[in-house]
Amino acid sequence: MPETIFSKILRGEIPAHKVYEDEHVLAFLDINPISRGHTLVIPKEPAETVDKLSDDAAAALGRVLPRISRAVLAATSATAFNILQNNGAMAHQAVFHVHFHIIPKYDDDSGLSLGWNPRKLQDGAADLAKVIAANL
Amino acid sequence: MPETIFSKILRGEIPAHKVYEDEHVLAFLDINPISRGHTLVIPKEPAETVDKLSDDAAAALGRVLPRISRAVLAATSATAFNILQNNGAMAHQAVFHVHFHIIPKYDDDSGLSLGWNPRKLQDGAADLAKVIAANL
Repeated sequence: MPETIFSKILRGEIPAHKVYEDEHVLAFLDINPISRGHTLVIPKEPAETVDKLSDDAAAALGRVLPRISRAVLAATSATAFNILQNNGAMAHQAVFHVHFHIIPKYDDDSGLSLGWNPRKLQDGAADLAKVIAANL
Repeated sequence: MPETIFSKILRGEIPAHKVYEDEHVLAFLDINPISRGHTLVIPKEPAETVDKLSDDAAAALGRVLPRISRAVLAATSATAFNILQNNGAMAHQAVFHVHFHIIPKYDDDSGLSLGWNPRKLQDGAADLAKVIAANL
């Protein structure tokens, strides 16, 4: 995996506003927040995208999401928030080390805005579900 | 916690295109997908928002995200995807049982589109990080 800015933060070579750290996970404020309290949660295990992360690293990261979310809400007085994790440049990933964004939303104009264009589930859905399940 | 459509799916009272199930987690196709293979991963533990989820339920859910993501990619031939989890009506949550969206992205026009308006980290960031950390 290529070196990223998060590798340098993990090694302590560049500073970050850390909010949480354990054996497997580091959390710190996003340097370019889209709302106040915008926090990144990253695994210490190097992986570019979440599909390449080990089960144990992903479990350790999942385990702390409720706790870190509660602390962000308590510190900011936000009551709504989004968790977002992007994989691949086309999906808006900019740093190629897995990171989960915790993004407080204070009003309609703050935080994450989403383009959402739902469709009806297509005819082939049952077959698609079977193919996904067969890959698990 | 109020009854939701996901409670009914978990109890088998209404059908879903299931792709994965274990003791703690169920995954199935979103009935209103925003792209082909749009999958929901939910904890069996009832919780409206992720900040109210237990550590163990969150860990069990985190643990299967890489595996389910790989299966969605394998089944759809997508190479990019977003994971999104919304908390609160203002943050676009529609069903009040925790759910993680896995949303494949095939091209710029498919899947999730994001409004992203980053700012510079404000002067009070160091203090804010301390307040978040103090709540952990």
